Amino acid sequence: MSNCIVAQSGGPTSVINATVAGVVKGNQMNPIYDHVYGGLNGIEGILAERFVDLTNMTEEENRTLQQTPSSALGSCRYKLKRDNPEDFEKLLKIMEKHDIETLFYIGGNDSMDTVAALSEYAEKNGITDRRFVGCPKTVDNDLMHIDHCPGFASAAKFIAVTALQTWLDVNVYPASRQEVFILETMGRDAGWLAASSCLSGKIDILILPEEPFDKDIFISRVKECIEAKSKCYVVVSEGARFADGTYLAAGESKNDLFGHAVLGGAGKALEAMILESGAASRCKVQDLATAQRSHASEQSLVDRTEAYRLGLSAHMHSADKSFTGHMIALKRRDSEEYDVEYFTIPAKEVANFVKHFPAEWILPEYRGITQEAYDYLQPLIEGTPYITYKNGLPAYVEPYYLR
Amino acid sequence: MSNCIVAQSGGPTSVINATVAGVVKGNQMNPIYDHVYGGLNGIEGILAERFVDLTNMTEEENRTLQQTPSSALGSCRYKLKRDNPEDFEKLLKIMEKHDIETLFYIGGNDSMDTVAALSEYAEKNGITDRRFVGCPKTVDNDLMHIDHCPGFASAAKFIAVTALQTWLDVNVYPASRQEVFILETMGRDAGWLAASSCLSGKIDILILPEEPFDKDIFISRVKECIEAKSKCYVVVSEGARFADGTYLAAGESKNDLFGHAVLGGAGKALEAMILESGAASRCKVQDLATAQRSHASEQSLVDRTEAYRLGLSAHMHSADKSFTGHMIALKRRDSEEYDVEYFTIPAKEVANFVKHFPAEWILPEYRGITQEAYDYLQPLIEGTPYITYKNGLPAYVEPYYLR
Repeated sequence: MSNCIVAQSGGPTSVINATVAGVVKGNQMNPIYDHVYGGLNGIEGILAERFVDLTNMTEEENRTLQQTPSSALGSCRYKLKRDNPEDFEKLLKIMEKHDIETLFYIGGNDSMDTVAALSEYAEKNGITDRRFVGCPKTVDNDLMHIDHCPGFASAAKFIAVTALQTWLDVNVYPASRQEVFILETMGRDAGWLAASSCLSGKIDILILPEEPFDKDIFISRVKECIEAKSKCYVVVSEGARFADGTYLAAGESKNDLFGHAVLGGAGKALEAMILESGAASRCKVQDLATAQRSHASEQSLVDRTEAYRLGLSAHMHSADKSFTGHMIALKRRDSEEYDVEYFTIPAKEVANFVKHFPAEWILPEYRGITQEAYDYLQPLIEGTPYITYKNGLPAYVEPYYLR
Repeated sequence: MSNCIVAQSGGPTSVINATVAGVVKGNQMNPIYDHVYGGLNGIEGILAERFVDLTNMTEEENRTLQQTPSSALGSCRYKLKRDNPEDFEKLLKIMEKHDIETLFYIGGNDSMDTVAALSEYAEKNGITDRRFVGCPKTVDNDLMHIDHCPGFASAAKFIAVTALQTWLDVNVYPASRQEVFILETMGRDAGWLAASSCLSGKIDILILPEEPFDKDIFISRVKECIEAKSKCYVVVSEGARFADGTYLAAGESKNDLFGHAVLGGAGKALEAMILESGAASRCKVQDLATAQRSHASEQSLVDRTEAYRLGLSAHMHSADKSFTGHMIALKRRDSEEYDVEYFTIPAKEVANFVKHFPAEWILPEYRGITQEAYDYLQPLIEGTPYITYKNGLPAYVEPYYLR
């Protein structure tokens, strides 16, 4: 037999470790590999031969890993460049040296591009004994060809719960006190996370990146709410834009290493508009920031289970020696009870595309989402797993990259 | 028999409703009053005779109420002015009209002042059949004479959990990526909430209002962390100040109706210092804002139980017809196992004072807190109550003020 390695890349999620746990458990149940290595800090750490051996992970550690948020193996934003074959050669040599047949790479858009690039390079150079399998994760839910991305639902659930809880807070004062509350969510250029706040049933105004922002309509909607009940609950996606394409938060944005804009500040921009227009006398902004992808105290049980099974499925598919350059995806079953099945798709068809929140699911004038959107979102946040605690805090595994 | 009324005031907490539930259950167990009314929006709503009847609340509603964050009866920031007897007269007439013998007022500093003022007025005017009982709550934990305030521990737990979860997120990238993460907490001029983040065991730098802020020491500490491990986790209280008394967030602060400063922005101020000084190349700020007092998905079981029992205790104490102008307080037992007992104290001794985080519990150079502080904080966050869910979200009671 040979070995395999699993690694994580990009921004963490609440259940990204459940997929690692699935790969490890899959090999314990049906040993295809002698060793399951964990690659630390993604491709960057693998290139430096920074591995841990996860083969014999205990059942207890496996369970604790599943409830631990963020990437326990560490992450990276290292980009393999197709026009520079050095890294490719080096990576394949390292895999050969350690007899690693399969690399499972858990990540989003950019990571699927890495999987596609590595498999293309291997194919082009006649290397048939190294295989590359993509496992999707992203809180943004913006990957193509997959019903929804592991990691999304737990963040969506935290957002819906926080919207409900802060809505209760915003409304406690009498009608004499006007108050607008603005919740800003992640999601980049896709509105999935912001839209999921509607599951709380409490959102007055929802601003998504998929719809050009119109200040006049927004302000008139705020006034309408304030007149009706003196309170107004607004949710805005960090990626919301004006019709000319500039972000609401344009003043504050900058680019990261991949050329993607670093977003944040849309809520503050809306607050300034509200106070300047006099639409309301008080306004508060809550930017959920890092907490929304790190919070794991109320993971979606559906999400965590699916992320775990995706790891099992990836391991199982890799028994096929010709399986490479693909991502494991989820398809919603056409059944009365919500359920999914797993299938595979070439990673290159996923890489570098963005799946937007459907325009036909958006109600006009920022009035939220359609019943179809609710029907899509609702099953994803169902169930809350039992979390074990230690000294009053959730029990988490110590990150492997710090051991 | 006569009636009683319970009302809530000031900023909400995660367990402020548990105290209402305790008063209601106390009277169901041992009926002292014919009716337990809920006063909507605190004193302001009582003056407008906006009541609900809570006497026969079902067991299920009582349990759901205990897991519902924020003030289910609504709140207010209405201030009774001692030099203007009109409101006092009106309130006492309304109590007489509805045969309300006892008012239970759940709140913080300002609410205890209201309890003191009302009982003084009654005494001065020879009114012996109306009584006023204070029930403490505040996430800030800044009330005098009480070991800790109901509401504090659940917020403290959310802060410690979020610190742990976001710390895991901040550390995932390799050492080549410098990153400072700044978590800003509430707490006004007291450092209790910020200090409780240390229960996560992950805080590099802790900045409390009790210690004058020194930029040079702060920047050198950030550099020290970045050199050692390329990451630095900072927690700052919204009320942190320079030696001259100005808030770190001075640029953004304004005053509320009570003349208290509206705080927020200390984290952004620190971020600017870090980037300007070049101490680190990347910095993120998470302001926990409203979520930290609204989050109830992982209430502290100790906190919720104590808040509930405080309601029971307030009801029981009110059987004594001479009991007025007092607050129910908590004293930590001198026992091996953590436990508390309830006692009473004149509300005027609590009103308008602030209990600070003890200076002798603060380590120098922002290095966190002493073992004594840990010993104080740790028992308070223990236990997580079982939360019931509905459609993937925690089940909450509909606010009484919106029914």
